[in-house]
Amino acid sequence: MKTPTLHTCLSPALLNLYDVSSSIVVIIDVLRATSTIAEALFNGAKSIIPVETVAECIKLGKQMDVITAGEREGQIAEGLTYGNSPFTYPKEFINGKTLVLTTTNGTKLLHMALAENAKAIITGSFPNLSIVCNYLVTQKQNVILACAAWKDRINLEDTLFAGAVISRIKEHFSINCDSSQMAETLYNDGKGDLYEFMKVKNASHYHRLTNYGLEKDIRHCLTENVANILPVYEGGRLIAKKI
Amino acid sequence: MKTPTLHTCLSPALLNLYDVSSSIVVIIDVLRATSTIAEALFNGAKSIIPVETVAECIKLGKQMDVITAGEREGQIAEGLTYGNSPFTYPKEFINGKTLVLTTTNGTKLLHMALAENAKAIITGSFPNLSIVCNYLVTQKQNVILACAAWKDRINLEDTLFAGAVISRIKEHFSINCDSSQMAETLYNDGKGDLYEFMKVKNASHYHRLTNYGLEKDIRHCLTENVANILPVYEGGRLIAKKI
Repeated sequence: MKTPTLHTCLSPALLNLYDVSSSIVVIIDVLRATSTIAEALFNGAKSIIPVETVAECIKLGKQMDVITAGEREGQIAEGLTYGNSPFTYPKEFINGKTLVLTTTNGTKLLHMALAENAKAIITGSFPNLSIVCNYLVTQKQNVILACAAWKDRINLEDTLFAGAVISRIKEHFSINCDSSQMAETLYNDGKGDLYEFMKVKNASHYHRLTNYGLEKDIRHCLTENVANILPVYEGGRLIAKKI
Repeated sequence: MKTPTLHTCLSPALLNLYDVSSSIVVIIDVLRATSTIAEALFNGAKSIIPVETVAECIKLGKQMDVITAGEREGQIAEGLTYGNSPFTYPKEFINGKTLVLTTTNGTKLLHMALAENAKAIITGSFPNLSIVCNYLVTQKQNVILACAAWKDRINLEDTLFAGAVISRIKEHFSINCDSSQMAETLYNDGKGDLYEFMKVKNASHYHRLTNYGLEKDIRHCLTENVANILPVYEGGRLIAKKI
């Protein structure tokens, strides 16, 4: 059997360079969308509906019995009820509920992968690192690690997560992709203390969130396997899948 | 006076994210276009006209007294006379002559920067690293380090060169750009032996050129300051500029 390929796409603006339709696409938006998605599903959320705009989120909130959430510039967006922090979604609150979450970068990328007929779409973050790796190895399909970035600008944290995955599963894939090599190298540089690495490297998103007083969120979003569940996008929703 | 900014653009497909019109743009195509440009100008070439297609190169060759050069898939392109290796252009051959060079990635990017009204366009490579750094520091303008990449896919060698520049001049700029941080980190990882780093990291272009028997070219293109001249794009040509 042919060894499947693995590529890393560091910005949504580069997704068109990769063969999405023959691949599983892992959506990576470490700070904080895909970390919060893992957390909410891990704590029993029935499903998560990712939407791009605040208006869509409000609209669905009126039509269905759901929780609406999303932030713009560090504040809960007007018309929505909750924010983007993983700490907002403990079991006693989210269990059995459906969350409609508006995020810009991650949702846009997810919809791009959908439009390009990805074989499967899952979301990845440090809180669910292990299960993402296990899933990718068992599927024996081509993989694209797709970083949500920040308004198409490459960011450090999503790149580091791609590197974390690559360092764990590279033996199972054929990797001819400089972005993947770079991501793995950066992860190996930073893995001793990812939080400190983000700080020392002056990562733009580290600064943005720290200015909002969200150090605790950053630390949580960089912690491995604290919400080890597999979010799979099916029928317009992210649901937790057993593997 | 406000500290100028520095950004790194890792692929031509991302150039639209940056404020080109307020910046000096450094075109980086380490293997081998910008290295060969530095070499030819250092050895006395009168000017270099970069063109995107083989057809344009042939056309100019018929109209003017110039040397035409360019490769496609590791071979001198049909209708042209010379190739892309820096070793093709020693002083005894190129001194006083005009070279029309067709390269795909680097020339495309240069024309994009031109279309976006860059304040100035220069080319950078390890052979002319020092003079590029000196120029950028003395100009006190915003800078975009623009990597030519490979058909829009990010590559290791151009990223490493961006990192080499950043590590030398960062005190003079305000840098809020994760791509720059990543480039500098990778350069610091690899600077002890860039050739070995490219090899170990399995860089895609390292493989491509090694398959063509071009190890010697790669080594030369990764050597600092062996052709320390400043190529500036003016009036459709790259010329050597004193600073």
